[in-house]
Amino acid sequence: MTRLDLDRILAARRMINPIFLDTPLYRCEALEPVLRCTVSIKLETANPVRCFKARGTEVVASLLAEHGPRAVVCASAGNLGQALAWSGRARGLEVTVVASRFAPATKLARIRALGAQLELVDGDIETARERAAALARDRGIRLVEDSLDLETCEGAATIGLELADALPSADSPFDAVLVALGGGALATGVGQVIKSRAPGVEVICVQPLGAPAMTRSWHARRVVTTESINTIADGVAGRHPIPAVLDDLLLVADDAVLVSEKSIMTGMRLLLEHAGLVVEPSAALGIAAIIEDRERFAGRHVVTVVCGSNVDLDAYRRWVDTP
Amino acid sequence: MTRLDLDRILAARRMINPIFLDTPLYRCEALEPVLRCTVSIKLETANPVRCFKARGTEVVASLLAEHGPRAVVCASAGNLGQALAWSGRARGLEVTVVASRFAPATKLARIRALGAQLELVDGDIETARERAAALARDRGIRLVEDSLDLETCEGAATIGLELADALPSADSPFDAVLVALGGGALATGVGQVIKSRAPGVEVICVQPLGAPAMTRSWHARRVVTTESINTIADGVAGRHPIPAVLDDLLLVADDAVLVSEKSIMTGMRLLLEHAGLVVEPSAALGIAAIIEDRERFAGRHVVTVVCGSNVDLDAYRRWVDTP
Repeated sequence: MTRLDLDRILAARRMINPIFLDTPLYRCEALEPVLRCTVSIKLETANPVRCFKARGTEVVASLLAEHGPRAVVCASAGNLGQALAWSGRARGLEVTVVASRFAPATKLARIRALGAQLELVDGDIETARERAAALARDRGIRLVEDSLDLETCEGAATIGLELADALPSADSPFDAVLVALGGGALATGVGQVIKSRAPGVEVICVQPLGAPAMTRSWHARRVVTTESINTIADGVAGRHPIPAVLDDLLLVADDAVLVSEKSIMTGMRLLLEHAGLVVEPSAALGIAAIIEDRERFAGRHVVTVVCGSNVDLDAYRRWVDTP
Repeated sequence: MTRLDLDRILAARRMINPIFLDTPLYRCEALEPVLRCTVSIKLETANPVRCFKARGTEVVASLLAEHGPRAVVCASAGNLGQALAWSGRARGLEVTVVASRFAPATKLARIRALGAQLELVDGDIETARERAAALARDRGIRLVEDSLDLETCEGAATIGLELADALPSADSPFDAVLVALGGGALATGVGQVIKSRAPGVEVICVQPLGAPAMTRSWHARRVVTTESINTIADGVAGRHPIPAVLDDLLLVADDAVLVSEKSIMTGMRLLLEHAGLVVEPSAALGIAAIIEDRERFAGRHVVTVVCGSNVDLDAYRRWVDTP
């Protein structure tokens, strides 16, 4: 049994501002001749924070607004911070976000614009996590830990509910879901719902070769940490998997695969050219996985969760123009 | 009284595949410091045809599948044709689309890929309309005329339903809706619902200076035709307004404004930079209108309907890079 259950996920859904729910799910036929499989997109970018993370922070902030401390801190690669800032502002919470100073400038700017206090660290997301934990201890405020805190997984899991609900009426039911794998909230959340409501659908987690800690851990069935991060997919770039999240992932993921930076860039380009979507690197991981293993997906119907679109445009243009 | 009524629009809604309904509506705060007003986006691009037109073609095709001839033809700048091809294919109809050979290549390619027969004419949309009418006469098949056929307006009007439904629960209710004005289906449809359900909300139609026929007609209160078209906004580029549609528009639009090509390109760039959205020129008309009259909109809450994202990327890149 994982830490997640369907009743709590359904309860979580009721705490989320509907603006983040029932996101578009549609087939993108223009991608199909290129990828040689049926591709549906679950689009999590058409909302005020341009990523799926608010599904989780809405739950966190709703509970805090009712019962908890009014001040909260999180470490973030940039999207969780924006989402917590948005959800916290809506409920009068005081939000502090700790991020790497190397995070995309646009993510940092949005965190500030949404009224959060932003603290930058001279390191990666793991440094930010340590600093956020220290701040929480020192100030006695609530620490939100992505993927460890159940609310973040339950919020993400509501994507799984929407996928499962779409299955019976789909002209062509999908047989695999591709999810970006970082800390694991999205993968365990979606995986939990899919495995309980549509166990025949394969749940495949995708991570960059340059930040493979959780994928290696999944294959080794024990926590494997890495020394450094080397990927443009800033949103999924951790080095220290959380044991409890790995335990859950072992129960709900059918596979975890690694993809190259080149495939991530190709994935971003294909989503631009054939779907008209600007996406951040993490959101192209699913397409990258198809590119890297066309045989596996040939003729199948695959859903990929397009989980964020917060990119610095200069970098984005370089990536999609890379041949 | 216009030709439209709420009961028929509600009935139309029930004929539309839900994949095209309940599209995202969200505030885009990142645009607001630039535009100096509150901006919400109604996003009509996250669906299989990347534009709003399927709301209308779903109604057309549903009715035909029940009662009518199984063959249908339309003239199209490219989006209606895609949408009719999609809706027709789903119901086993035989679809012919007549388009200008100068239409964006990607739109033409998608019409073909969706299984429609595509006939190209060596002229603009008005030439295509004539040819489609001739084909319908010759073959005895159903001619779908955008904006004239009530189904196309009623389908578009379902966007108005969704906007009106969102008003009571909005944190900040919007006080103006900006809609692209071409043939008039979108403007009269949305206008009809807004004026009957939320009459205090201003309905403002926006057209390019380079294709001003309907706007000039609205101001003159009689049909004014133009000799040529000179705009990148291919989706709204007509020269011969339809009298019955003008009559409706006179009853439901509060204003009709013209914008420059430069403002359209700036609008596209702002939507890319601050909203992460690739849009076609017609979908940037609302933002262009704000740019051209900042005083008018200052401090107000404006909804703009982002009505399509079908662009040739090479042209798109040139447009958004134009300083």
